[in-house]
Amino acid sequence: MIADKMKNMVANSSAIRAMFEEGNRLAGIYGAENVFDFSLGNPNVPAPEAVKNAIIEIVNDTDPVALHGYTNSNCGYAEVRAAVAKSLNERFDTHFEGKNIVMTVGAAGGLNVILKSIINPGDEVIAFAPYFGEYRSYTNNYDGVLVEISPNTVDFQPKLDEFEQKITPKTKAVIVNNPNNPTGVVYSEETIKKLAAIMEAKQKKFGTNIVLISDEPYRELAYDGVEVPYLTKYYDNTVVGYSYSKSLSLPGERIGYLVIPDEMKDSEEVLAAANVATRILGFVNAPTLQQKVVEKCLNEKTDLSFYDRNREDLYNGLKECGFDCIKPQGAFYLFVKSPVSDEKQFCEAAKKYNILIVPGSSFACPGYVRLAYCVSHETIIRSLPKFKELAKEYF
Amino acid sequence: MIADKMKNMVANSSAIRAMFEEGNRLAGIYGAENVFDFSLGNPNVPAPEAVKNAIIEIVNDTDPVALHGYTNSNCGYAEVRAAVAKSLNERFDTHFEGKNIVMTVGAAGGLNVILKSIINPGDEVIAFAPYFGEYRSYTNNYDGVLVEISPNTVDFQPKLDEFEQKITPKTKAVIVNNPNNPTGVVYSEETIKKLAAIMEAKQKKFGTNIVLISDEPYRELAYDGVEVPYLTKYYDNTVVGYSYSKSLSLPGERIGYLVIPDEMKDSEEVLAAANVATRILGFVNAPTLQQKVVEKCLNEKTDLSFYDRNREDLYNGLKECGFDCIKPQGAFYLFVKSPVSDEKQFCEAAKKYNILIVPGSSFACPGYVRLAYCVSHETIIRSLPKFKELAKEYF
Repeated sequence: MIADKMKNMVANSSAIRAMFEEGNRLAGIYGAENVFDFSLGNPNVPAPEAVKNAIIEIVNDTDPVALHGYTNSNCGYAEVRAAVAKSLNERFDTHFEGKNIVMTVGAAGGLNVILKSIINPGDEVIAFAPYFGEYRSYTNNYDGVLVEISPNTVDFQPKLDEFEQKITPKTKAVIVNNPNNPTGVVYSEETIKKLAAIMEAKQKKFGTNIVLISDEPYRELAYDGVEVPYLTKYYDNTVVGYSYSKSLSLPGERIGYLVIPDEMKDSEEVLAAANVATRILGFVNAPTLQQKVVEKCLNEKTDLSFYDRNREDLYNGLKECGFDCIKPQGAFYLFVKSPVSDEKQFCEAAKKYNILIVPGSSFACPGYVRLAYCVSHETIIRSLPKFKELAKEYF
Repeated sequence: MIADKMKNMVANSSAIRAMFEEGNRLAGIYGAENVFDFSLGNPNVPAPEAVKNAIIEIVNDTDPVALHGYTNSNCGYAEVRAAVAKSLNERFDTHFEGKNIVMTVGAAGGLNVILKSIINPGDEVIAFAPYFGEYRSYTNNYDGVLVEISPNTVDFQPKLDEFEQKITPKTKAVIVNNPNNPTGVVYSEETIKKLAAIMEAKQKKFGTNIVLISDEPYRELAYDGVEVPYLTKYYDNTVVGYSYSKSLSLPGERIGYLVIPDEMKDSEEVLAAANVATRILGFVNAPTLQQKVVEKCLNEKTDLSFYDRNREDLYNGLKECGFDCIKPQGAFYLFVKSPVSDEKQFCEAAKKYNILIVPGSSFACPGYVRLAYCVSHETIIRSLPKFKELAKEYF
């Protein structure tokens, strides 16, 4: 009954489902507090109190016909788009207007909207391993072909030599995720400048337009004072995808945006296409109440200290056990080298200690595992003795 | 820069945009109260007070980490799905369970999810003209081919003879919209029984599975006590798409569901595919706060009397002017015969009286125009003298 394209995905999806059910099964036996689930990127920090206050204020003060109705443009409320643009300009010294902003159903919705807008069947989309596995599905939705750049396991910065070689006349887009899921690495300004220069040269050489898609749901999660470059400033054909899922802890509410700057080639046409794509993909518009909520909460700060403490304690704890891992500067993931080459075996071994982690092959980087440390601090502390026991099997 | 598939759609979309801007321009000149915009299906009835109360109660009483987090299943909260199933069972004597419900980003999101789940490139999807134009885009998203059944302009019930002839071995789905946009007609139980029998026979003949997709955002908007049959009871391979956009006046919040019943062939696999499709299309899950809101508001009744009064007054007013129109029994649209064969000309003429209406060719039924009467009653009353002036140009 189901579509051919879906068959493999349904099979893979069962594996994720199985992990989730394993977590529930273990929690049933040992108690939830004794299961150490590092598998999901679901923030454990509550949304700021300001979100709750904004919701109550908005529903009390706004005409429900206007509040819950369709927005006039599929790109969202004009005043919300203008407020987002203004906030970006203040923070990143950019010069966007409301018209450059498309409110989206999270970053996942935004990435689908921009890919639908620009990808012809057979077009190539480049991603740097390790990368968020959904990029492959999103590209496949529009019959694009995902082209992988192999991982640089020294420091997880992108391999620019290989990148340069793999850009072809069919390359339509390049996706970067900064700070990165699953490594937590932040691509430096130097890296971005080199990457942009390569893309500029290839556009010229092939007479093509190559779009740099910057997927930035973790933008605010950067530690040690590290700067996350704002990519529209380095390369004209840049589209930024953002989500409030991490910064305001609203992943379930599905609210984010795309930035399509004037500097982009045919930007008006791309904006018109994004408007249509938002409609015909069935999003229609980003949820209206949440558009108003983020407008009111643009100046809210993420509680970085929570994640930072988790990062330090988990990173140090794992190093003490003997595990090999680079210290990440962003997001809320650690990407740990598996002590055995088949990291799925290692994930299985971890389960014996009620530790749930994700194999790196899900991110096109076998031999590593991802730990999401967006859990309670208590979970981190209680898990460390278990990691010690696990380590004893290898070191 | 943009994808080839998008080019035509961007061009068409400019026409809708132009109509919207025309409305704004006219409002600027004549005052908003003197512009009669019947072009949009954006309800003018406010969401019930219960929605506001539910929102406030939920944000006050629920842990924000749980409330705004990803749902465990991409299909939505288990308790919300169970509550929706229970409510359907009570109203329609069905026997769904929570697992048969997929919470979606409105009906548009739901239709995309089911089409993504089942359509292979080249598969045919049948729709009965006049139909909601987006069906063509949704089908096209998955490289399906929309096959049109020509309109029956006598009573706008589906032409079943033509339907029977146009089902082929490539037919994968049939979309019905009951009550219908744009005609307001309700397909009777007799019609549905015949339609189901034809589909059963064709499935047998071709050895195929043909899915009946029932798009039902207007289900509760039925007047004169007319019954809207619940299609899963007539045909096993039925998927129902629903939205709370009309019944709770929440179109901008993007909340609805799909029903995938056990009776459907391979229903578990279809449910698994819908779960994956929800994720990879970028919806991820239906907005979580709104899932909780509809759970609390399942027993809210739509204020039918508001739309019914509009229906009566606009229908009678137009008939008095000499316009030809069947009296609709559902939704909030009138489908009026254009007094000239080129209905776009008629739409242009109406603009002179500040009346905005949509040409039937947008619904694959030229020679007619659609009026959405989900406006204020005052708009209806104030528009009638203008319709009289307009009529004088023709009768």
